[in-house]
Amino acid sequence: MNSAPTIRTAEILCVGTELLMGQVINSNANFLASELVSLGISSYRQIVIGDNLQRLREQIVTSASRADLVVLTGGLGPTSDDITMEAAAEAAGKKLELHNESYDNIKHYYQRICRNMPQSNKKQAMLPSDATALINKNGTAPGAMFLCNAPNLDDPEHMAYLILLPGPPSEMRPMFMDQVRPFLEKHNSARFRTEFIRLYGIGESAAEERVKDLIDSQTNPTIAPYASEGECLFRITQRIESEDEEDRIRPLVEIFKDRFGDYIYEVGQRSLKEVVFDLLFEKGMTLSFAESCTAGMASSEFVDVPGSSKVLMGSIVAYDNRIKEQLLGVTKEVLVDMGSVSRECAEQMAVGCRDLLKTDMAVSITGIAGPTAYGTNKPVGLVYLALADKDGTDVSEINLSGNRMRVRRVSVLHAFNMIRKRLQ
Amino acid sequence: MNSAPTIRTAEILCVGTELLMGQVINSNANFLASELVSLGISSYRQIVIGDNLQRLREQIVTSASRADLVVLTGGLGPTSDDITMEAAAEAAGKKLELHNESYDNIKHYYQRICRNMPQSNKKQAMLPSDATALINKNGTAPGAMFLCNAPNLDDPEHMAYLILLPGPPSEMRPMFMDQVRPFLEKHNSARFRTEFIRLYGIGESAAEERVKDLIDSQTNPTIAPYASEGECLFRITQRIESEDEEDRIRPLVEIFKDRFGDYIYEVGQRSLKEVVFDLLFEKGMTLSFAESCTAGMASSEFVDVPGSSKVLMGSIVAYDNRIKEQLLGVTKEVLVDMGSVSRECAEQMAVGCRDLLKTDMAVSITGIAGPTAYGTNKPVGLVYLALADKDGTDVSEINLSGNRMRVRRVSVLHAFNMIRKRLQ
Repeated sequence: MNSAPTIRTAEILCVGTELLMGQVINSNANFLASELVSLGISSYRQIVIGDNLQRLREQIVTSASRADLVVLTGGLGPTSDDITMEAAAEAAGKKLELHNESYDNIKHYYQRICRNMPQSNKKQAMLPSDATALINKNGTAPGAMFLCNAPNLDDPEHMAYLILLPGPPSEMRPMFMDQVRPFLEKHNSARFRTEFIRLYGIGESAAEERVKDLIDSQTNPTIAPYASEGECLFRITQRIESEDEEDRIRPLVEIFKDRFGDYIYEVGQRSLKEVVFDLLFEKGMTLSFAESCTAGMASSEFVDVPGSSKVLMGSIVAYDNRIKEQLLGVTKEVLVDMGSVSRECAEQMAVGCRDLLKTDMAVSITGIAGPTAYGTNKPVGLVYLALADKDGTDVSEINLSGNRMRVRRVSVLHAFNMIRKRLQ
Repeated sequence: MNSAPTIRTAEILCVGTELLMGQVINSNANFLASELVSLGISSYRQIVIGDNLQRLREQIVTSASRADLVVLTGGLGPTSDDITMEAAAEAAGKKLELHNESYDNIKHYYQRICRNMPQSNKKQAMLPSDATALINKNGTAPGAMFLCNAPNLDDPEHMAYLILLPGPPSEMRPMFMDQVRPFLEKHNSARFRTEFIRLYGIGESAAEERVKDLIDSQTNPTIAPYASEGECLFRITQRIESEDEEDRIRPLVEIFKDRFGDYIYEVGQRSLKEVVFDLLFEKGMTLSFAESCTAGMASSEFVDVPGSSKVLMGSIVAYDNRIKEQLLGVTKEVLVDMGSVSRECAEQMAVGCRDLLKTDMAVSITGIAGPTAYGTNKPVGLVYLALADKDGTDVSEINLSGNRMRVRRVSVLHAFNMIRKRLQ
């Protein structure tokens, strides 16, 4: 398969009733999609389809006519409803034959796990005659690669590669990385250079308006905005022919910095909490949280960063006012006159937490996560945060929309962002 | 839309370049697929496609001609590459008009979060004239439902419903459950009676072994096992023609109770933490956590249950040993001789937390979440938990496999389960 056409486009075809029934999440499509992107292969479609021979064969023909490559996962098992190899062979007009080497591998696999090979497994060694067999080091089902005539309106000579991989990620991923990826690197030219610009504190649409002119005018590099809960992210992608091509991403990053200033918390891969951890760790500072409405979520999130024990000493979850008073030293006056969701309460919580846990910095969060505002006249989504360190205390008020979970999640992000702004 | 055709088949169409590029995993398809199954609607395909107007419009036409229902997610945002509503309207041959009620909702959303509405958001209120608008309680993008003429070879009169939902799961899921699911229940013939049996403390395969005979022999009701992290769930589904058909689920539930005993924490919809909340609330008991490796996750998880403020007073996150000593009164001897991940430390943490926060019950968690066991000779995944109340203290040791996040998550479930077993 070396006199091979260049591979520019692909479709990912995942076979399995368990996917259609929603019993398992489709992590294979996600893995393959990001691999193809990194290879500079554009995939226009991912399709999940069940174990139905006719539907599957028709889908393979359709996908092959649209793309240079169709990557299939699943349906290579020994049971009667595993029909992907058969459907792909039919779609390519090929016959299945026993592939002796693969058959030996399956027999050895069963010897290795000290079991007898069920006869049904022999079926897994049936491959199209001219297929390249892909060895499965982690299971019984071999994969296969072969060319398929797939004429379309633009090109009656069009051919597509069919690559069949097993469904279990533990078998599919190593097979792809060891045997398929090197093949694909040989058979496509394009490469991509990407950079991520991560912002906090500005909404997706407001952010996009600030750089709309760039997004509209740019073709290479391209600029794509993505919004995730409470955060905003731009991906800049430059298509290159060779590694030594000039870097057109840097200059764009500089323009973004001018336009967004300190909304930008990271140019690169780090999440907000990783940026915050690195800042505190570099400065050798210790941290604690005093959490009311978030009830431990800020601490728990922060601890996702390995090594966080060097920075986070501990936290007080002061959900009930009695705890705010007795442990954090929030005064009765504040609780009675201002209420527990107030600027003053947040400030006393942070200061009290820093004193109690003896950390360089303490951050407090108190707000109304909803669904109701329990007796107060304050709106759901109102949250006060305070940051206390040796230089004093900052307080911040935010008004969040959304359900209980979102209010708490975004409050945590906001707490992390306060730390970043203080230290960056 | 009441003179509506019956909905038997569906396709799920997820729109977004971030899915095609493998930047986010497609949890929406998984959620919608299992919902459709529970409604007795068969889905033959899931398709992921990018933000390309022509390709998307053509795909909608194709899917609509094959199925009675096409559920679309994503591409309803305010930005210029959000084109799902436009593509669906074109596919159905409808014009977009400003939907005043939706426009007002978007304006109110921005008032609530004290931001000015960018003009680009107005676009989100443009819906087909005869569409049913779906209210978005957790974001700006309204959803929409409308009928689409989609003739095919078998039926030149064939029509399909198009249902458009926002991409973020936190917006899509409540919209589906509150507004779409009730609609679909009305418009498909098949009826199902389902019951969930929820277990904790037994693995999926071990659980399946115990009822394999039932699973294999049953056709109606069907028994389907699902495993979620650290938990195990069986769904029993009886297909019925009318509501007054005899209940064949109850007898099965009784057999499950015999075979699984107190592995079963719930027959119904409640999660483990909801069961625990109800038990504590009914008994008027207060709760606190002393968390080391979970660092606030138990408290934060518990607070997902609305009303939890009546039960959870607060918690101590004692990540550093200094906090364990100074706040929870863990002795130097225990920390030096036994280490912070020990039976004795867990016990002192729980007792100390109960004294400090003056709650009826306190539960402690201390363990090695990994990735490394930082200097100790103890294995990653070793976790000690203790429960202290007026009757004394229970300590429990567990050895967990999996990564840092899984060890922490399962530790939290185990803490909840200790409370359940003490009270149930």
